[in-house]
Amino acid sequence: MIEDKIKELGFELPEPAKPMAAYLPSVQTGNLIFTAGQIPIVNGELKYKGKVGFILTLEEAQKAAQICVLNCLGVIKNIIGSLENIEQIVKLTVFVNSADNFTLQHLVANGASELLGEIFGDRGKHARSAVGVNELPGDSAVEIEMICRVKD
Amino acid sequence: MIEDKIKELGFELPEPAKPMAAYLPSVQTGNLIFTAGQIPIVNGELKYKGKVGFILTLEEAQKAAQICVLNCLGVIKNIIGSLENIEQIVKLTVFVNSADNFTLQHLVANGASELLGEIFGDRGKHARSAVGVNELPGDSAVEIEMICRVKD
Amino acid sequence: MIEDKIKELGFELPEPAKPMAAYLPSVQTGNLIFTAGQIPIVNGELKYKGKVGFILTLEEAQKAAQICVLNCLGVIKNIIGSLENIEQIVKLTVFVNSADNFTLQHLVANGASELLGEIFGDRGKHARSAVGVNELPGDSAVEIEMICRVKD
Repeated sequence: MIEDKIKELGFELPEPAKPMAAYLPSVQTGNLIFTAGQIPIVNGELKYKGKVGFILTLEEAQKAAQICVLNCLGVIKNIIGSLENIEQIVKLTVFVNSADNFTLQHLVANGASELLGEIFGDRGKHARSAVGVNELPGDSAVEIEMICRVKD
Repeated sequence: MIEDKIKELGFELPEPAKPMAAYLPSVQTGNLIFTAGQIPIVNGELKYKGKVGFILTLEEAQKAAQICVLNCLGVIKNIIGSLENIEQIVKLTVFVNSADNFTLQHLVANGASELLGEIFGDRGKHARSAVGVNELPGDSAVEIEMICRVKD
Repeated sequence: MIEDKIKELGFELPEPAKPMAAYLPSVQTGNLIFTAGQIPIVNGELKYKGKVGFILTLEEAQKAAQICVLNCLGVIKNIIGSLENIEQIVKLTVFVNSADNFTLQHLVANGASELLGEIFGDRGKHARSAVGVNELPGDSAVEIEMICRVKD
């Protein structure tokens, strides 16, 4: 079971964090779910703030990316009831709050991508964009949005 | 009627702004429409330029975000004839031209999200990402792209 | 034939570049293909690095955008076997590694959009967002992701 796997890997599926503003955490259309951009909030607290490559190390940013992915899964579960109903992770977009000259956004994003592989196996393999940005909401270190396909 | 609601709220649905370059304002595939990124152009003039948090206030940026959303709706109408045919706003991505240390992108994006709620009610509730960027085309303050689902 | 057209225009369809990290180059869901963000890699080497408007000129950035598009087509071909099976290019997102005060992201993106028009004609017309970012993986000048619809 997917949720057991998440625990086995030492992680916890969160209760979906409330959106910081006037929108929904995720929306289903046909068999696709689009999540809102998720930031590394745990129990209502933003855990990783500041520019990666200056305030935060690559390793810390990878941990932030893992939390973002868990938050994506949390808001998806909220719609479909069980993560077993995910057929395929389709796409991630990973925005990294980047210090000048920090160019390892792809390695930050690996924190997210590898965790999905460990949790879901082949179903977790996705297309992905990783880009640097100069600022994110609340000074978050990372923001990740996900598209997944669910079973009919 | 949606267009009456837009007027009642004090806004005007634009004639679709011409793309600034070689692409289409929006494309339909199945029952999804993807818009191009819209900037706050009104009657051919870019109304809000410069970095939010430096040249522009949060309130100005929220107004810019509202115009972007109206421009998204304008280019969608251009495809489907009537906004009544929108079944659901699925996703917004809000790019905010951000001054250093400006971290309220989510509040800028609320200008867009709340207007959609006022116009469409539940059908206007969407997933959303808001991110900061260091530059946008023409020094635009905000750029927004939308995905919506239309009736069969 | 599309591949002949690409050659005729003086370009070469690449062997798909290996992702720089733990993800897939593209994923199909229904009749949509989402590519991973592609950077201007040719034969394993990143050809255009640095900030556009400082290290690189607009013209160089447009060439980088063309390579990104060819790489998108390469990874799409890898899934569907032949580019003849592309029914429509639906959406591009073009991220431009932008120097301060460089605001011509839309012209950079034209390098991509116009090439798609030349290759595919009407089938190449797409919705598009172009945004500036302060950093990209490996200091790439441009990163482009594509959504296309394929034949049933």
